Amino acid sequence: MKKITLYEVGPRDGFQNIPTYIPLEDKLEIIDGLVNSGVEHIQITSFVSPKAIPQMKDASELAGICKGKYPTLDLFALIPNLRGATGARKSGINRVSYVVSLGEQHNLANIRKTHQMSYDELALIKGEYPDLAVGLDLATAFGCPFEGKKGEREVVEFLKGYVDLGVEYVCLCDTIGVADPLQVRTTVAAVQRQFPKLDLHIHIHDTRNMGMVSTLAAVEMGVTNIQSTLGGLGGCPYAPGASGNLASEDVLAMLASMGYETGVDVRSMVRLARRQAELIPEGLFSGHLFRIPAGE
Amino acid sequence: MKKITLYEVGPRDGFQNIPTYIPLEDKLEIIDGLVNSGVEHIQITSFVSPKAIPQMKDASELAGICKGKYPTLDLFALIPNLRGATGARKSGINRVSYVVSLGEQHNLANIRKTHQMSYDELALIKGEYPDLAVGLDLATAFGCPFEGKKGEREVVEFLKGYVDLGVEYVCLCDTIGVADPLQVRTTVAAVQRQFPKLDLHIHIHDTRNMGMVSTLAAVEMGVTNIQSTLGGLGGCPYAPGASGNLASEDVLAMLASMGYETGVDVRSMVRLARRQAELIPEGLFSGHLFRIPAGE
Repeated sequence: MKKITLYEVGPRDGFQNIPTYIPLEDKLEIIDGLVNSGVEHIQITSFVSPKAIPQMKDASELAGICKGKYPTLDLFALIPNLRGATGARKSGINRVSYVVSLGEQHNLANIRKTHQMSYDELALIKGEYPDLAVGLDLATAFGCPFEGKKGEREVVEFLKGYVDLGVEYVCLCDTIGVADPLQVRTTVAAVQRQFPKLDLHIHIHDTRNMGMVSTLAAVEMGVTNIQSTLGGLGGCPYAPGASGNLASEDVLAMLASMGYETGVDVRSMVRLARRQAELIPEGLFSGHLFRIPAGE
Repeated sequence: MKKITLYEVGPRDGFQNIPTYIPLEDKLEIIDGLVNSGVEHIQITSFVSPKAIPQMKDASELAGICKGKYPTLDLFALIPNLRGATGARKSGINRVSYVVSLGEQHNLANIRKTHQMSYDELALIKGEYPDLAVGLDLATAFGCPFEGKKGEREVVEFLKGYVDLGVEYVCLCDTIGVADPLQVRTTVAAVQRQFPKLDLHIHIHDTRNMGMVSTLAAVEMGVTNIQSTLGGLGGCPYAPGASGNLASEDVLAMLASMGYETGVDVRSMVRLARRQAELIPEGLFSGHLFRIPAGE
């Protein structure tokens, strides 16, 4: 039986798109529910400017509480820069995701940095906090809204410098949901060939209904770490109806049905996704399972 | 480049779940749109009791008009019995899908027949209309709401009699969306091994978010005929939020992106799915592509 590890990123990638502030106690209820469902890796927040993303203004407080409650779990946070690393560090976070977009135009739009600036910033972070584990979330790894489709050679070339910097993992993120399973296979194969020892993650948005199929394509190529969000929370609230993330409970149910072991209780996740939909009525949810009576 | 044939079943499997009668002219607009998008195989209606499914009360008129307009296209209908075959025949339909559920409890609930009665009825139809091409839609082929999961041996055993009766194709229908890609592969392989010359179709409901992934699993096993519905219209309107069918335009876009040839214009289908959502506001749509601005 093959083991797959779920990295639940809803408290970051899901919550960040909700315009109305979600009370801290509601966030904590979801995170508690995730822990109680057996999830051991949770991206609990991001250390970004509260002006840019007001939803994340409670990052330090939330991280402090969660680290205090669950000292042995892998509770990590997203950071875009050194200031974020400092914030994370002060809150007791010892593992972070550093986000860079493969599409430089997207990188400029998203975190206002050129590729060189992003790279230099990470070198600075590694110098400042040598014992901070840093993974690389490679956004727009399969396609960029400004630059179009991305090929596997561009991915491999881009990653070389970051692998040299000693990133702990690389997550191939399909930020706009344009990857098809064939592209996922080709890209994963190229990265595996170039960096055989690199810990690889996959994060596919469900924008074009390919969240499940492209994630499975990666899993069947040997990727054992998947990122997704409870209920499929995510997407842009300004594009009503558009789908966001791959739903954790949906992909967990498929994997369990296919004989993969995840250590997470799917029924508990389905109930939690229903609860989340009550707590965040304005959320956009791509999940299917939590909507059906037989979903448990 | 591998060719995949789309069997659009929305005008039957999608429309039948809409409680309010859809005006004939709206149905015809959708069918015209499908034809103009390049779809050559359309399940345009079903010849069932208007008491059972009032939505299909216009079957004869609709079939007559469509066959008159598009004499060379494969416009077929679903039938549950001899009376349906007679109705189809009178309307100029020369190809039908005969529906039987692998789960006998579901067969009883759905068309009030035991397995033996369903088999005898098809023998009767074949005797009465020897030149009517009949395909078998095997409902609940992967799992039954009353009897649970179905294994590939049960599928193969069940099909033997029908293959002997000379059915033109068999469609493995995942009526309640419980199949996972592994089960699809196992079942398809078993059917292919037992009936190497049989024309095989696949029809996966998107209930548990596995419409795309299980359909691709079948395609990669060599199944070249897929059934789906425009916009993913389908599902039960009494289970709000629950997903219905796999969306034709979503699966067509994925296949095109992966280099498969379908002969169908995806952009035109996306626009048509949007139009359909205007015409049938109470419909439940599983489609993702038609909801996003960049969906074309």
